[in-house]
Amino acid sequence: MIECRLAEASVLKKIVEALKDLVTDAAFEFSENGLQLQAMDSSHVSLCYLQLLSTGFEHFRCDKESSLGVSLPNLAKVLKCANNDDTLTLKAKDEPDVISLVFESKKQDCIKDFDMKLMDLEQEQLAIPDTEYKSKVTIPADEFRRIIADLQVLGDTCKITAEKAGVRFAVEGDVGKANITLKPGEAADEEGGKSVNIDVEEAVELRFALRYLNYFAKATPLAESVELSMSKDVPLLVEYKMGEIGAIQYYLAPKIDEEDEE
Amino acid sequence: MIECRLAEASVLKKIVEALKDLVTDAAFEFSENGLQLQAMDSSHVSLCYLQLLSTGFEHFRCDKESSLGVSLPNLAKVLKCANNDDTLTLKAKDEPDVISLVFESKKQDCIKDFDMKLMDLEQEQLAIPDTEYKSKVTIPADEFRRIIADLQVLGDTCKITAEKAGVRFAVEGDVGKANITLKPGEAADEEGGKSVNIDVEEAVELRFALRYLNYFAKATPLAESVELSMSKDVPLLVEYKMGEIGAIQYYLAPKIDEEDEE
Amino acid sequence: MIECRLAEASVLKKIVEALKDLVTDAAFEFSENGLQLQAMDSSHVSLCYLQLLSTGFEHFRCDKESSLGVSLPNLAKVLKCANNDDTLTLKAKDEPDVISLVFESKKQDCIKDFDMKLMDLEQEQLAIPDTEYKSKVTIPADEFRRIIADLQVLGDTCKITAEKAGVRFAVEGDVGKANITLKPGEAADEEGGKSVNIDVEEAVELRFALRYLNYFAKATPLAESVELSMSKDVPLLVEYKMGEIGAIQYYLAPKIDEEDEE
Repeated sequence: MIECRLAEASVLKKIVEALKDLVTDAAFEFSENGLQLQAMDSSHVSLCYLQLLSTGFEHFRCDKESSLGVSLPNLAKVLKCANNDDTLTLKAKDEPDVISLVFESKKQDCIKDFDMKLMDLEQEQLAIPDTEYKSKVTIPADEFRRIIADLQVLGDTCKITAEKAGVRFAVEGDVGKANITLKPGEAADEEGGKSVNIDVEEAVELRFALRYLNYFAKATPLAESVELSMSKDVPLLVEYKMGEIGAIQYYLAPKIDEEDEE
Repeated sequence: MIECRLAEASVLKKIVEALKDLVTDAAFEFSENGLQLQAMDSSHVSLCYLQLLSTGFEHFRCDKESSLGVSLPNLAKVLKCANNDDTLTLKAKDEPDVISLVFESKKQDCIKDFDMKLMDLEQEQLAIPDTEYKSKVTIPADEFRRIIADLQVLGDTCKITAEKAGVRFAVEGDVGKANITLKPGEAADEEGGKSVNIDVEEAVELRFALRYLNYFAKATPLAESVELSMSKDVPLLVEYKMGEIGAIQYYLAPKIDEEDEE
Repeated sequence: MIECRLAEASVLKKIVEALKDLVTDAAFEFSENGLQLQAMDSSHVSLCYLQLLSTGFEHFRCDKESSLGVSLPNLAKVLKCANNDDTLTLKAKDEPDVISLVFESKKQDCIKDFDMKLMDLEQEQLAIPDTEYKSKVTIPADEFRRIIADLQVLGDTCKITAEKAGVRFAVEGDVGKANITLKPGEAADEEGGKSVNIDVEEAVELRFALRYLNYFAKATPLAESVELSMSKDVPLLVEYKMGEIGAIQYYLAPKIDEEDEE
């Protein structure tokens, strides 16, 4: 039996919004430690990994490890019915056919419960490689989203260059060329600690499909800042840390296209 | 001759918004007591009834009972030109071809007048049965709209159950099952008297097409709360009371589909 | 070489938004006095004329008169990447292939630079006639936009009548007739000087295509008020003055259609 309660339904709402355009069906893996989800996008180019720790829940009970196959677009529809400050309780029996979601208003005068059908999903066990990254860049999440959205209008591929002096996002397309450079910030700190942080052991320059970066940026409402970790020839890691409760990680392989290289 | 002035054009604007998706052409019936409109939706499933009392107008003159056939989508276009705090004067001659709408800004520095063509409509005299309802439920109008919109994503038919303990809206569809329960409220009163009120002489459980409930909910901006009146085997009455000036009522027959009943 | 800096990138952003639906490709003409652009819309019905004075820039250098052919929709895409309070520097070499746009955040921690490809445009030298107008009407820009948008729903052609007593916009269509009358205002002055000003030497009544007036009204964010200048049988001038830096002017010939005249 599974029964776990989140103080704010809005957390799961934002998580599902951050995943549902990339992944349609996914298995929520419950264990006594919490809840995780691993999936590749439908074109098998990127991988996302969600981890929610049991300690981030108001109440967390999972008697037996279970994998619950869920349609994320359907789950999104159900979560839309929650008010942002409703509590959310997830419930499932052992060997369940359905997962129950119960939203309760703070005043307890409105209770919404949903039984959502589960799906049998083939388990693809994905090994996420443990990588030491040579470059880490932390930037305000909304600034990252904005940069990706802006550049996507101008081209398909973004070259990210991380150097001690700053991080640069470059794109080239029919309209022309664009470079957006963020410098590590002190000044920015004044506005509540949202600033650019550069931790570069070895400068890197990698090229990525903007389309996927744009999908990842849907996680923006979950965190103040986003961390980009890069090393030569290994996938980019884009991570949104959600305080106590856990994190969403996205992995994307760099583009290797010698002809396009300058 | 007809000449009547509303202090706020926005009232008629909201009324027409509340009707125009359900009814295309309708006759405004003017008499010395005020103005009313009765119409069935185009598929003849639901009925709506608008009543505006002459006492709710700043000025009301109607020398002779008249029925003015109006295209509601066209009237909506004209009303869009009004600012919300403009006054509105409706004018028509005896045996008119057009109805005039005059919007005046509070400062009188902007006057907008429209002559809208009238239509000949066949009069369908509808008898609204006088029913004693066994169950009445009053809920905040915006909460009702939200519930209907949420449930419509999950299915077509909503089962409404009114009991002393509360009112329940249930739906079942491909995604799964949903139940939304509202309990009669005291706590809610704190926030300005918007609360759930349950007056159940005899519990009822009836099934309705969400599509129509959703049309009715377009009247939400007209009233703080909505009253649902139900009895076994008679149409649901959904009523929005607009203070002094009148009310909009919608009637919808319950679905009778034995096979679907549990 | 050209190098000129605007304190606020948003000014050029709004200018391009005001032009790009009317004109696709246009030549920015740089000289030591500033920057101007003249173009007819693609159906050669209206003409727009932009003038930005060098004195309105923080810094303005133009060594040699140059005409830079630009795709306005592409320029709009690039300008969308600017934050409203970024500074904007425009740069070009002599005989350039590209124009560079550099956006810098006030804190200098984010720099966005774009090289946008230029186009060879055939120069059509347009002579803007110097006209003495018999009627000038100044109205709040947002009120003008609203009137045009409202009337466009009801018909295609707007009759503008300017008289000492006020200015009237009239339209006639399938729905009926509309008249919007603005009276010269004192009262309106209270709200920060936005009011209607009528300067009529000789009353005029002219008819214009609402479609084009609606395009012109896209310049609304650039100015508090708009000035309409009219005389019998000459094009209407619609002018948005942008303080120190310059103005946008639109010219539109009146409709002459005797059959439609009342």
